[in-house]
Amino acid sequence: MSFAAQILTLYPEMFPGPLGHSLAGRALAEGKWACEPIQIRDFAIDRHRTVDDTPAGGGAGMVLRCDVLGAAVDAAIERRPGLPVLAMTPRGRPITQARVRELAEGPGVTILCGRFEGFDERIFEARPIEQVSMGDIILSGGEMAALMLLDACVRLLPGVMGAASSGVEESFESGLLEYPHYTRPQMWEGRAIPEVLRSGDHAKIAAWRKQRAEDDTRLRRPDLWERHGDVRDRPASGARRTDREEGS
Amino acid sequence: MSFAAQILTLYPEMFPGPLGHSLAGRALAEGKWACEPIQIRDFAIDRHRTVDDTPAGGGAGMVLRCDVLGAAVDAAIERRPGLPVLAMTPRGRPITQARVRELAEGPGVTILCGRFEGFDERIFEARPIEQVSMGDIILSGGEMAALMLLDACVRLLPGVMGAASSGVEESFESGLLEYPHYTRPQMWEGRAIPEVLRSGDHAKIAAWRKQRAEDDTRLRRPDLWERHGDVRDRPASGARRTDREEGS
Repeated sequence: MSFAAQILTLYPEMFPGPLGHSLAGRALAEGKWACEPIQIRDFAIDRHRTVDDTPAGGGAGMVLRCDVLGAAVDAAIERRPGLPVLAMTPRGRPITQARVRELAEGPGVTILCGRFEGFDERIFEARPIEQVSMGDIILSGGEMAALMLLDACVRLLPGVMGAASSGVEESFESGLLEYPHYTRPQMWEGRAIPEVLRSGDHAKIAAWRKQRAEDDTRLRRPDLWERHGDVRDRPASGARRTDREEGS
Repeated sequence: MSFAAQILTLYPEMFPGPLGHSLAGRALAEGKWACEPIQIRDFAIDRHRTVDDTPAGGGAGMVLRCDVLGAAVDAAIERRPGLPVLAMTPRGRPITQARVRELAEGPGVTILCGRFEGFDERIFEARPIEQVSMGDIILSGGEMAALMLLDACVRLLPGVMGAASSGVEESFESGLLEYPHYTRPQMWEGRAIPEVLRSGDHAKIAAWRKQRAEDDTRLRRPDLWERHGDVRDRPASGARRTDREEGS
């Protein structure tokens, strides 16, 4: 069974959008995943199809009504039972590559996209929804975040990436940034590919790459490096083995 | 002059894509920003229009050639001088709302989107490119990240958001998560809007929201809370005033 992506949105016409091209587009055409946007407005309960109202307590903007959201989420769950439901919100838990990998290994995902000032908070008390943040920036809605999340999931689906080995040696999969890449030409504007990469000595190349991944992570992302260290130092003698990815 | 977005990509057909709808789409139609994708392949130097080659030192995937990237970046800079050039890469510095705001206040942005295993690292030594990460997950390319970044910028452009006050009281703008929202109906599935929000007492409402923003940040995002504390505790008596946003 292919990976099913249900997207609850006020802008279903945004999907699959850019995911209809390139790697994800080919996978979509081949049936490796299904893109199923659902219009939240279809679950409005008045004849004006209202989905939002002013914030209780005052303030700018509009808030998505929990009764409309509840009905939309219920319909999505009924349509595709067993999919985790994620809401794109800056109040959520930051996404990780480990979570993306889990999602990609599952049956699919239902993604709830907000607009305006956000969701009525009661939807999160009343329904099993995982609040996810795709970065510490504010979007006009959850749709671009949903596209990004789906892109990250789809590339990991079986048969989507050309080389099966792609995807395991990349940034975050080891809890580190990836080492830098080089390719031909060997000399460009007076800059050469590092000598070691031309040596043909696989052990030396692997050691250089590991060193660069560690150096760059420590320098550029002390936050990641710290978490990586926690995992690295965890005793491996317990019931289960040390798994760096869990720490990322 | 409107905000110019140049996107260097192998998939120019992905743009404006979802940014052609809703808030960003209206702003685009009104000329408040310009979306100008540039095909990287147009800067290939052989008759096969090759843009990539195998990684020096071996390994899976393909790497974007620095000579092709250099020519493409040079053309973009010549076309729109004065725009900051950002590359979407997981090896980059994590984006912040403060950086998004800076970009939105400027003349625009040139965004370099990678594909395959990434860029030949020499491009970053040879050209003034800011490496930016849009989150600790791996995408099939930089395009979804570029769409997300542009969405975040465009909503901040003058006249794009309906209420001028929207955008200042949101997550990260204060270095905190935003407080939760509620709207009608007052009672839903036995869940009421918090009493204080219906009190009409503006001081009490503001205090409750501040408390919830602080509590939720501490609980959900200890990393943000820690940085917020650093800014909060910084002496305000120096040459310049404490500015929370700079710390976010």
